[in-house]
Amino acid sequence: MEKLSIVKIGGNIIEDNASLKAFLKLFANLKGKKILVHGGGKRATHVAAKLGIESKMVNGRRITDAETLEVITMVYGGLVNKNIVAQLQSLQVDAIGLTGADINSIASEKRPVKEVDFGFVGDVKKVAHKSIDKLIQADFTPVFCAITHDGKGQLLNTNADTITSQVAVGMSELYETSIYYCFELDGVLRDIKDKKSVIKHIDVTLYKELLEQGIIADGMLPKLENCFDALNQGVKTINMGNTSMLTQENDNFTRITL
Amino acid sequence: MEKLSIVKIGGNIIEDNASLKAFLKLFANLKGKKILVHGGGKRATHVAAKLGIESKMVNGRRITDAETLEVITMVYGGLVNKNIVAQLQSLQVDAIGLTGADINSIASEKRPVKEVDFGFVGDVKKVAHKSIDKLIQADFTPVFCAITHDGKGQLLNTNADTITSQVAVGMSELYETSIYYCFELDGVLRDIKDKKSVIKHIDVTLYKELLEQGIIADGMLPKLENCFDALNQGVKTINMGNTSMLTQENDNFTRITL
Repeated sequence: MEKLSIVKIGGNIIEDNASLKAFLKLFANLKGKKILVHGGGKRATHVAAKLGIESKMVNGRRITDAETLEVITMVYGGLVNKNIVAQLQSLQVDAIGLTGADINSIASEKRPVKEVDFGFVGDVKKVAHKSIDKLIQADFTPVFCAITHDGKGQLLNTNADTITSQVAVGMSELYETSIYYCFELDGVLRDIKDKKSVIKHIDVTLYKELLEQGIIADGMLPKLENCFDALNQGVKTINMGNTSMLTQENDNFTRITL
Repeated sequence: MEKLSIVKIGGNIIEDNASLKAFLKLFANLKGKKILVHGGGKRATHVAAKLGIESKMVNGRRITDAETLEVITMVYGGLVNKNIVAQLQSLQVDAIGLTGADINSIASEKRPVKEVDFGFVGDVKKVAHKSIDKLIQADFTPVFCAITHDGKGQLLNTNADTITSQVAVGMSELYETSIYYCFELDGVLRDIKDKKSVIKHIDVTLYKELLEQGIIADGMLPKLENCFDALNQGVKTINMGNTSMLTQENDNFTRITL
């Protein structure tokens, strides 16, 4: 099976032009077939504030009302996505910017209202791996923003980490897939206070040990759970660390496998 | 040669949800391979105003400064384009939203500063007809917004009519192309005061006669000039009229051929 890399970047990189430029160079140099997924970060919050739209939070989670969805569509789907595509083109990467509505690539379902009505938030239902592969086979590099659709004309705000893992799972039918989650830390830390305590390899056995020992920090727990879900659904390797893990020189990051 | 329709809609349709929905149904029902091009209309101006960005005009033409380009990228490339794509998907059209940066489909050049500095405005240089055709051959329907790029990482605001004719000219190497310019009138009028005086067919001979008789209204002159430019570069037919010309029932519009 041919290899395919799915790289995810978050707000910390997108919000800083120098960081974004540096990252895009690394991404452009990454060999082989690849997909980029980006979150949005605080830019949408800034634009919303300027437009006089209040960010509504419930239990620390953002509520996506109709106005907020418009801002997200403008900022993630337009401003951020198309500028990344233009910059990648200047680096000779034949990028194509996508939401899940484009080529019906990621269909989702509006999250059912239980205790909280999250508004226009979508949970991924189906990744059209064959349609996405048509783009890859045409030598295009898909760049996904964190927006999906319900197939009935409604765009939906969707978590970028989830899009990344679901796209990777879908593409695993056709490729040997690796995920690269780029984030602020160098990797998963054994001691949250010691930035140098990167665990270089986590497999199921170590994961269970770390869980039992209570070593994994709260914020990292759901991330790792999602990782093992994706690995169990066919993803080959998941890497977590800073952007330099995309180069050959840095081996100081966390590799997660079954 | 297989047929390809390139349909352009303007602000009057985009700004009104009911008109847009009605148009998208007609577009979905249009047989054969097709491309949609949309302008932006006043929505960008509204958003800019809300964000406190002044619309700068020189001699009645908008100047695209950096802030205005951001708004255009958000509104045309994000909000308008992705909502059209989502709606087309709900109508079983496998749409894919594009700027000229995506798959390097439309390269342009920043307009040189002469008497007026138009800012981030691009004049089309090259349409990548083979790349666009990869999408069409994959049964996707491209939906272009009025944004191109310079290949060096810079997005550029570009006239939607020009994008339409240049894409049509480019695709004429591979297809028998027809343009449909949807606008407010039923067609080109013999008497601007009589909405029913639609000229049903204009060829080069009649065009010259109308020019000599001074019958073509000022606003229509550059449009018709551009039409004959496109026809001379390989476009087969250009149609101008209201959106119902996309149906078989209405033959009350203007067909332009060499």
